[in-house]
Amino acid sequence: MSLSRREFLAASVAAAGAALGPGMAAATPARAAAPAASRQDDRPGRNVLLIVADDLGYDLGCCGGTLRTPVLDRLAREGSLFTDAYAAVSSCSSSRATLYTGLYSHTNGMYGLSHDVHNFSLLDNVKTLPWILKQAGYATALVGKLHVKPLALLDYDAWLLPEQAGNRDVAAMGHAAGHWMRAQAGRPFFLTVGYSDPHRAGDPSQFGNTRDWPEVKRERYAPADVAVPSHLPDLPDVRADLAQYGEAVSRLDSGVGVLLQELAASGHADDTLVIFLSDNGRPFPGAKDNLYREGIRLPLIVRSPQQRKRHLHNRAMVSWIDITPTILDWAGAAAPADYHFLPLPGRSLLPILESENPAGWDHVFAAHSFHEINQYYPIRSLRTRKYSYFHNLEPSLEVPIASDVALSPSWKAIVSTPGVRLGKRTLEAFRHRPAEELYDLAADPDEVINLVDDSAHAAALADLREQLAAWRTATHDPWMAGVTDPFGPAH
Amino acid sequence: MSLSRREFLAASVAAAGAALGPGMAAATPARAAAPAASRQDDRPGRNVLLIVADDLGYDLGCCGGTLRTPVLDRLAREGSLFTDAYAAVSSCSSSRATLYTGLYSHTNGMYGLSHDVHNFSLLDNVKTLPWILKQAGYATALVGKLHVKPLALLDYDAWLLPEQAGNRDVAAMGHAAGHWMRAQAGRPFFLTVGYSDPHRAGDPSQFGNTRDWPEVKRERYAPADVAVPSHLPDLPDVRADLAQYGEAVSRLDSGVGVLLQELAASGHADDTLVIFLSDNGRPFPGAKDNLYREGIRLPLIVRSPQQRKRHLHNRAMVSWIDITPTILDWAGAAAPADYHFLPLPGRSLLPILESENPAGWDHVFAAHSFHEINQYYPIRSLRTRKYSYFHNLEPSLEVPIASDVALSPSWKAIVSTPGVRLGKRTLEAFRHRPAEELYDLAADPDEVINLVDDSAHAAALADLREQLAAWRTATHDPWMAGVTDPFGPAH
Repeated sequence: MSLSRREFLAASVAAAGAALGPGMAAATPARAAAPAASRQDDRPGRNVLLIVADDLGYDLGCCGGTLRTPVLDRLAREGSLFTDAYAAVSSCSSSRATLYTGLYSHTNGMYGLSHDVHNFSLLDNVKTLPWILKQAGYATALVGKLHVKPLALLDYDAWLLPEQAGNRDVAAMGHAAGHWMRAQAGRPFFLTVGYSDPHRAGDPSQFGNTRDWPEVKRERYAPADVAVPSHLPDLPDVRADLAQYGEAVSRLDSGVGVLLQELAASGHADDTLVIFLSDNGRPFPGAKDNLYREGIRLPLIVRSPQQRKRHLHNRAMVSWIDITPTILDWAGAAAPADYHFLPLPGRSLLPILESENPAGWDHVFAAHSFHEINQYYPIRSLRTRKYSYFHNLEPSLEVPIASDVALSPSWKAIVSTPGVRLGKRTLEAFRHRPAEELYDLAADPDEVINLVDDSAHAAALADLREQLAAWRTATHDPWMAGVTDPFGPAH
Repeated sequence: MSLSRREFLAASVAAAGAALGPGMAAATPARAAAPAASRQDDRPGRNVLLIVADDLGYDLGCCGGTLRTPVLDRLAREGSLFTDAYAAVSSCSSSRATLYTGLYSHTNGMYGLSHDVHNFSLLDNVKTLPWILKQAGYATALVGKLHVKPLALLDYDAWLLPEQAGNRDVAAMGHAAGHWMRAQAGRPFFLTVGYSDPHRAGDPSQFGNTRDWPEVKRERYAPADVAVPSHLPDLPDVRADLAQYGEAVSRLDSGVGVLLQELAASGHADDTLVIFLSDNGRPFPGAKDNLYREGIRLPLIVRSPQQRKRHLHNRAMVSWIDITPTILDWAGAAAPADYHFLPLPGRSLLPILESENPAGWDHVFAAHSFHEINQYYPIRSLRTRKYSYFHNLEPSLEVPIASDVALSPSWKAIVSTPGVRLGKRTLEAFRHRPAEELYDLAADPDEVINLVDDSAHAAALADLREQLAAWRTATHDPWMAGVTDPFGPAH
C-alpha cells in the first residue's frame, strides 16, 4: 500500500508538470501558473469526508445568513470558510460530476441530469475520485445521494442509504456513516455523504417539513423574519417558501452534527480532511440552474486536521473544479499517468488553506448545457473580481426553468403577480437573454445592467472573450465548433 | 429450450392483448387496431439475418435507381420490397436504437449519437432484440457496426469485426458471418450485420473508394451519368460526390452478395428470415438528419423462406418501429410480461408480407431530437398518404448539419454557389423552419409549399395535430411538456 501510494505520488508530480503545458497555460494563466502542491509525506490516516448538500445556497449562519446552522458555523470556525467559492455549473448531476472528476461538465459528458429520461452519463473513459482513490488503496463509501452515472465508473465499495424520494432522515445517514468509518479499522477511507436537504421534496411543505425526523430539533422560521435574497421578489408566498427552505437547511445542519459526532467517535477527527459544500444554488428562480452569482456562489468549508490557523475567511475565488485536485493532493494520489484528461484543470486548495487573500485566485469559469433533457440552454461564463461575463450560445431559446422550481409556490406567486421582478431583473430579461452579458460586479452585484455595448468596458470585454474562448478550447468544449467529430470511430 | 420458447410465446400473446389498451388505441387507431400476429408453431430453424446499411437512401436498382445493385435487386425479387418504408428518425444511433428496441428514440433514450462526446445511450430499463432473443434461447452475433450504447444492454454472444474507421472490407464481414452461422450447429440464431457503406469515410474519395477491396468488383460511375435526387442542386461537385457514393452502394451490394452466399453455404437459406434496410437517408444535405421524405424513406427488403408469393412491391407505409415486432413475431419471442415499455408501438410485418396494398398501413410517425450533442433540433412528424406534417419544437434555432455532410464536397459547392437551392428549397428555408410545416404530397412531393396557413387544409391540419399529440403522449415524449419528472427518484 505505501509503495502504491508512492507510485501514485510520482504520477501526480508528472501530471503537475504536464499542467504547465502551453495549451492550458494560455487558457488560464493565473490558475495554471500556481505551483502544484503534492504531499511528500506518507503517514497513515489521510482520510477524506466529503459532505455534499443539495440545492443549498450561500445561506448558512457563518455566511452571514439568518438561518440557524450552529454545527456548520462551528465547522467553519474550526477550519476555513471560502467566501468566494463557486460551483462550475448550477445543476445537480453536472455539478456532482465535476466534484467527482475534476472535469467541467462539458468535458466529462455529464451535460445534464442523469436520472430517468434525462439519461446523461459520464464519458466511458472518465476516471472518478472513488475509482482513483480505490486504486490508491482507499476504502470508499457513499451515503445518500449520488445522481451521477454510470455506476460502473463510480464504484464505491459501499453505497449506504441510497437516496429515497421524500426521505430526510439525516440522523440515519450520520449513523450509517459512523458505522462504516469504524469498520475500516485504520484503512484510509474516502467517505462521501450526499444529503437530500434542502432540495425540494414534493410534499405539501415543499421541503420535507411535514413530519418530525429522528434526532432533529426542528427549527421553524416565520415568513416575516426570513431574509429575501436579492434575486427574489418580496411576496408572501416567496417568504413562506423561504421559511420552509430554512427549516430544511437547519435539518441539514442537524444531520451534519450527527455525522461529525460519528467522525469524532470513530477516532478519525484528527486524521480526516472534511469538506462541506453544496451542488448548486437554492431551488428558487434565478438561483438553481443559473450561472448568475446566486446560482453558483455557495458555501465551502474545509477543515484540515493539519491546519494551524483556523476560523479563516478565505477570499480566494475557488471552483468546484478544484475539489478533486484538493482531495488527490491530500491523499497523495493521482489518476494514471496515461489518463486521457490530464492535466486536470483545477488546483489543490491545500496550499492556500490558511490564507485569507491568496494571490492568483481571481477568476472562475462555469458552463451550463442542460438541466432536464428538454431544457437546453448552453451558457459559458467567466467571473473575475470585477466582472461577470456570459456567453449564451443559443440566445433565441427561452431560458428553461427546472421543473421543481417551476412547480414551487414562489414561481406560481411570481408569474401570477403583474409587473413583479426577480429582484431587479424583469421576467422578460430573465427568460430571454442576449448572446453576451457583461456586468460590473462592484457597481452592479445583482448582474442586471448589461455593459456589452458600453465602450468604457470594451477592452475588458475583449479580454474576457479571449479568456473564455481559450478555456473552451483547452477544456475540449463540444459546443466550441460546429464540427465535433466528423470521422470518429463510429458515427 | 422449446419450453422457454413457449413461455415467451405466452408472454407475447399477453403483451399483444395489452396492445389494444385505450391509451395507444387512441393515439394510433389504425396501427394498434390491427390483429396482433404471433406464431403458434415452434419448429426449429427460425433464424434471423438483419442486414443494416449505413446512410443508404432509396437508391437501389430495384428501387428504380440507376445504381448497379444486382444482389439486392435479386433479394427483392425473392422476397418483398417495401416501397413506402420509413425510418423513425434520420440519425444513425437513434435509428439503430429503434431497430433494436422497437421504441421511438424519444422513448428509448437514444436521443442522438452514442459515440465519443455525444454520449447518448439507451435508458437503463430498455430491453433490446439481442437481449430478448438470447432469453428465448437464440445464439446472437453482431458483425460490423453497432453505434448504440450501452453494451450491457446489447449483449450479443459475439461481436465480430467491430467497425473500424475507413475499413470497407465487406467480404471479410460476410465470411465472418458465415463462419459464425456454421458454428451454431442448428441452434436458432439472430445475426446482425452492420455495414459501414455507403457512409462517408473521411478519405479523399469521401466513400472509401481510394483502394480496391477484396472480392469487390468496383463499379465506377461517371458524374455525368448519375441521377441527381430532387433535394440536391445539379452542380459538378454534387455529381462527383454522388458518383463516389454510388460506388460505395455497389460495394455494399457486393458485400451482401458474399453474405448471402455464406448464408446459403451454411444451409440456412431456407430457415432464415432476411431483412435488409438502412439506418437513415443518403449523406447529403436535405436527406440524412432530416425527416423530409429523402431523409427517412429507405429501402426495406424482407425475404421469408415461408412466403409463397415473391417479387412483391408492397405499398404499406411501414416504419422501422415495426422491425422489432416483426422479428419477435418470427421468433415466437417477446419481452417479459412486466416490461416497462409494453405494448411496443409497432406491428409485425409478417401478416402483410405477401400483400401489395394491405389496408390499415397508411401513416408513419418520426421524431428527431439531436444528431451530434451540439446539434439540437427537436422535430416530431406524421406522414400519411396525402400529407406530411412537421412540428418543429424549437423553430428559433438554425437547423444543424451533420459534420460529415457539412464537410462534404457537395455542401462546400452548395454554400459557395450564389442563389443555389437544395432542389426546390432555398437554403434559408432549409436552415430556418417555422413551428409547423404541412405539405400536400400529391401536389408537392418535394415538400416545399407549406400549407399550414391554407384554410383549404385546415381540417386536415387539425386532425394531424391531434394525432401527433396523442402519439407523443402515448410514447412518453419527454419534450411533450415542460415538466418531465419534477420529483423523480433523484433530481
